[in-house]
Amino acid sequence: MKKEAILHVSESPMAEPLSPSSFFLRLRLAREDENAKVVIHYGEKYSFQEKRDQVEMPLVRKSREFSYFESAIPLQSRRLAYIFEISARDEHYYLSERGLTASYDFAKAYEDFFQFSYVHEEDVFHLPDWASKAVFYQIFPDRFAMGKKEKDTGYINLKWGDQPTNKSFAGGDIKGIADHLDYLADLGINALYLTPIFRSNSYHKYDTIDYMRIDPELGTEEDLSALITKAHSKGIRIVLDAVFNHISSDSPFFQDVIEKGRSSPYYHWFFVRGDRPDIAKGNYEYFSVCPYMPKLNPENSECAAYLIEVAKHYLRLGIDGWRLDVADEVPHSFWQRFRAAIKAESPSSIIIGEHWHNAHSFLSGNEFDGAMNYPLTYAIADYLIKGKLTTEEAAGRLEELYVRYRPSMLPAMLNLLDSHDTHRFLTLANGRIDILEAALAILFFYPGMPCLYYGTEIPMEGGYDPDCRRCFPWDRANQENAHKKLLNSLILLRNSDILAHGSFRAEEEKGLLKITRSHNGKSLVLYVNGSRKAHPISSESLIASRYEGGYLQPFGFLIRR
Amino acid sequence: MKKEAILHVSESPMAEPLSPSSFFLRLRLAREDENAKVVIHYGEKYSFQEKRDQVEMPLVRKSREFSYFESAIPLQSRRLAYIFEISARDEHYYLSERGLTASYDFAKAYEDFFQFSYVHEEDVFHLPDWASKAVFYQIFPDRFAMGKKEKDTGYINLKWGDQPTNKSFAGGDIKGIADHLDYLADLGINALYLTPIFRSNSYHKYDTIDYMRIDPELGTEEDLSALITKAHSKGIRIVLDAVFNHISSDSPFFQDVIEKGRSSPYYHWFFVRGDRPDIAKGNYEYFSVCPYMPKLNPENSECAAYLIEVAKHYLRLGIDGWRLDVADEVPHSFWQRFRAAIKAESPSSIIIGEHWHNAHSFLSGNEFDGAMNYPLTYAIADYLIKGKLTTEEAAGRLEELYVRYRPSMLPAMLNLLDSHDTHRFLTLANGRIDILEAALAILFFYPGMPCLYYGTEIPMEGGYDPDCRRCFPWDRANQENAHKKLLNSLILLRNSDILAHGSFRAEEEKGLLKITRSHNGKSLVLYVNGSRKAHPISSESLIASRYEGGYLQPFGFLIRR
Repeated sequence: MKKEAILHVSESPMAEPLSPSSFFLRLRLAREDENAKVVIHYGEKYSFQEKRDQVEMPLVRKSREFSYFESAIPLQSRRLAYIFEISARDEHYYLSERGLTASYDFAKAYEDFFQFSYVHEEDVFHLPDWASKAVFYQIFPDRFAMGKKEKDTGYINLKWGDQPTNKSFAGGDIKGIADHLDYLADLGINALYLTPIFRSNSYHKYDTIDYMRIDPELGTEEDLSALITKAHSKGIRIVLDAVFNHISSDSPFFQDVIEKGRSSPYYHWFFVRGDRPDIAKGNYEYFSVCPYMPKLNPENSECAAYLIEVAKHYLRLGIDGWRLDVADEVPHSFWQRFRAAIKAESPSSIIIGEHWHNAHSFLSGNEFDGAMNYPLTYAIADYLIKGKLTTEEAAGRLEELYVRYRPSMLPAMLNLLDSHDTHRFLTLANGRIDILEAALAILFFYPGMPCLYYGTEIPMEGGYDPDCRRCFPWDRANQENAHKKLLNSLILLRNSDILAHGSFRAEEEKGLLKITRSHNGKSLVLYVNGSRKAHPISSESLIASRYEGGYLQPFGFLIRR
Repeated sequence: MKKEAILHVSESPMAEPLSPSSFFLRLRLAREDENAKVVIHYGEKYSFQEKRDQVEMPLVRKSREFSYFESAIPLQSRRLAYIFEISARDEHYYLSERGLTASYDFAKAYEDFFQFSYVHEEDVFHLPDWASKAVFYQIFPDRFAMGKKEKDTGYINLKWGDQPTNKSFAGGDIKGIADHLDYLADLGINALYLTPIFRSNSYHKYDTIDYMRIDPELGTEEDLSALITKAHSKGIRIVLDAVFNHISSDSPFFQDVIEKGRSSPYYHWFFVRGDRPDIAKGNYEYFSVCPYMPKLNPENSECAAYLIEVAKHYLRLGIDGWRLDVADEVPHSFWQRFRAAIKAESPSSIIIGEHWHNAHSFLSGNEFDGAMNYPLTYAIADYLIKGKLTTEEAAGRLEELYVRYRPSMLPAMLNLLDSHDTHRFLTLANGRIDILEAALAILFFYPGMPCLYYGTEIPMEGGYDPDCRRCFPWDRANQENAHKKLLNSLILLRNSDILAHGSFRAEEEKGLLKITRSHNGKSLVLYVNGSRKAHPISSESLIASRYEGGYLQPFGFLIRR
């Protein structure tokens, strides 16, 4: 047995209560120990010495280096104690908090069993119920559609359809989104994520001047209310972008500090070095390399309270949640306070953090519901576009990402192929629609909420910002096409309980990537051919792409019951 | 290279900010890869692609299965990005969030570097400054000393010195402690932890009836104030026991729920199944197997606020912190709220959780300062008493316990050999004072606050509860003895900056357990002979025990500069 590979961490994504009566456990062994027999001995913490149950844990998934054994065990009480018994290749060990031992004295188990000391209400993660079937569509409001409504169009400097620069204003607005809800409903999506809509001097509006005012270019609070009402009537939820890491240097708060220095009531809302911020000197903390985006300090209680009031205001207006910009650079204590306030105001609202890396520290259940899943984006691109991963390695990578977070929280991850901050996936794939479609199939089969960047259904192309923020081509949008039809089929499938709630397993099978989702004895299986040669496979399928004459062509996929 | 052993977790005890300008990093490899070369590439998150520093990380410690490489790197900004480069046995890898790769494209590093996205004030752990030189002494008030003060002694049913039962009242009290502070000061200790002193029907007082009243058997609030004042004048701090997991069924709160059922304002302070608690039926949650200790529910905000008021009341009276009973069965959200309130009231106070297992989830910096370190207790006993560990394995176990928690928090761990909840260590060791002394030497060399259970200096014997709660033998206490002198020397050594702040390393050297603590270029080294045969070693030493004729005898130890 490869002892160095063995891992279990209590109170982690390897050990979480799924409900007051069910507890999830995972043990990691080396990949080569996949045939090990793993038994969990478990019981009530205070009677574990005398009375225990045991159950064999099956091998559930494998990555490049590891085998993962998993089970959900019934909880007899709120207090759980457990240890593992592992047998492989004529070796036999017990794993407790003392580490691996050849024998185990159950009479002294209280010294070193693993435990979950008490399952409180707060320890069970509750997903907003709509999340498990959510299909998001991300809109960049200036570029999606201009509404049928009079407004001052003097600010518009980009002809709809021309190449945008990073100073372009194209005229899209909230009313434009509301006018096209039927289009979005027909596509099948049921949630919109809008990039920022609050008062700002930029077209992207990530440098907020006033959170309490809708930017007049995009509309009014009435327009937002109307959008929410109309969207809800069509079963579409609205999530807004909360840019709370930083603000615009033109905001009244920061201007007040520039003017009054330390005597400003907002001095401690920022991180100023010295008496007074000086934009030319940049003597304060700001976002990335952007002095025009001074960093806010929500460790300051008044600043935190203000931002939370902003968030609650729009929840009262009816929005369904917040996407949190640069959320990983905002202190944990603020998100904890934010979550408590937001969930008290609107229990079914969702909180999605922007986090490009391992977001584990924000996903322990008391901060975000989910995070933007860029590591998944990279895994799919590494496999289908960059050829950095073999099929077996790709399956392993998908499994490694799966075990990164609490199983109960995975359904709230926002899974995406691209966004306003990346190349469009289609462009990364050199315009290959077959690759985009194979990627979408994986996206829809991965646990979590798929999020389509506006125009993925066309499909639109676009390089890095500002090219990925082109105007939506309504002329092409309203033409039927095979790609949109295929995407629509995937969206419909997402409504199934199997994709909403099913277990997940990714593996390599006969050269194909196979993803199996199962729920209540029923399964959906996706096969993707990420290789450069055709693979024979029988034709039976629900949805297929690039299936020809008994062969799944390169970048083809096929979905079966 | 044994790839399966390789581990780094961001935002964990492997990666923590020590200050705004210094960051601690640890990488784990297999023990057999101890000769690997490990380089960290690190830099500011937003310029990591263009500009990086690099430093080689040394091998710092080894356990049975693993090698640990560690460094503190300077922080140039509040945002850190880093990856590892690992070379061993003709193999060469990079470790990023993508896992191990044979090559690494720094131009795309933003996709997968490890990060600490922003070091906020709250991310740096601040130890109460006195903790690093604290030496605790735990007192069971009914059994330590009866004060010179008139009181109603009718409740006393145990003659001082007789064998206690679990119903014995011996008459010790707060005044008795105050009367003996000179004795404690002479011993060298500088902090007292008292088991509960609040109104209760039991002799142990872990079933509180009224937190706001000192139990009359033990004295009055004036007695407590006097003890605090007098102790502080001698440089001794006072930590009390907060039993907030449960309360007595005789408490007015629980009695009100028994009387009024759901209409009691305290109904939701408990976990009652049904309309009304029934002690005979036990239809509510309670501690362990004790229906007379109904479990409190501090997820209820009023209950939480009450308990926090209790804690603040005694801080205002001057105590220096709280030991938290059964802290692992109390919800995280409460401890987070508790910590914020307690530290606001008294920033230099300490919070120590009772936690018998891996306490990592309570030690992320926003709950406890430290925890009672029973796993260390077991490690020492496994080595010196039970013979379960070879010297090499013992060193490895000490290192595994060391890497379990954030390095910055280790100095606040409460390290103990025994308590009111265990056998006395001496009795476990079959009365062998040499074993006790070797254990104490390890205890004093381990990072954290040593805590001596009352009478360890005698040394007292005692089996499991109630035998471990014998009356303090004042007749023997006031006799000088070699054991007390040795203990006193260890306590004096604890005052050195080396033991207070020094680095830690445990290893096997020529059959001896060697613990090295180093600080600012100076070291203290402890050698312990945990084997059953004498080991030759040169005589130079600061403190030695069982050193005879050039040989360290079994269970002897020796401390050198």
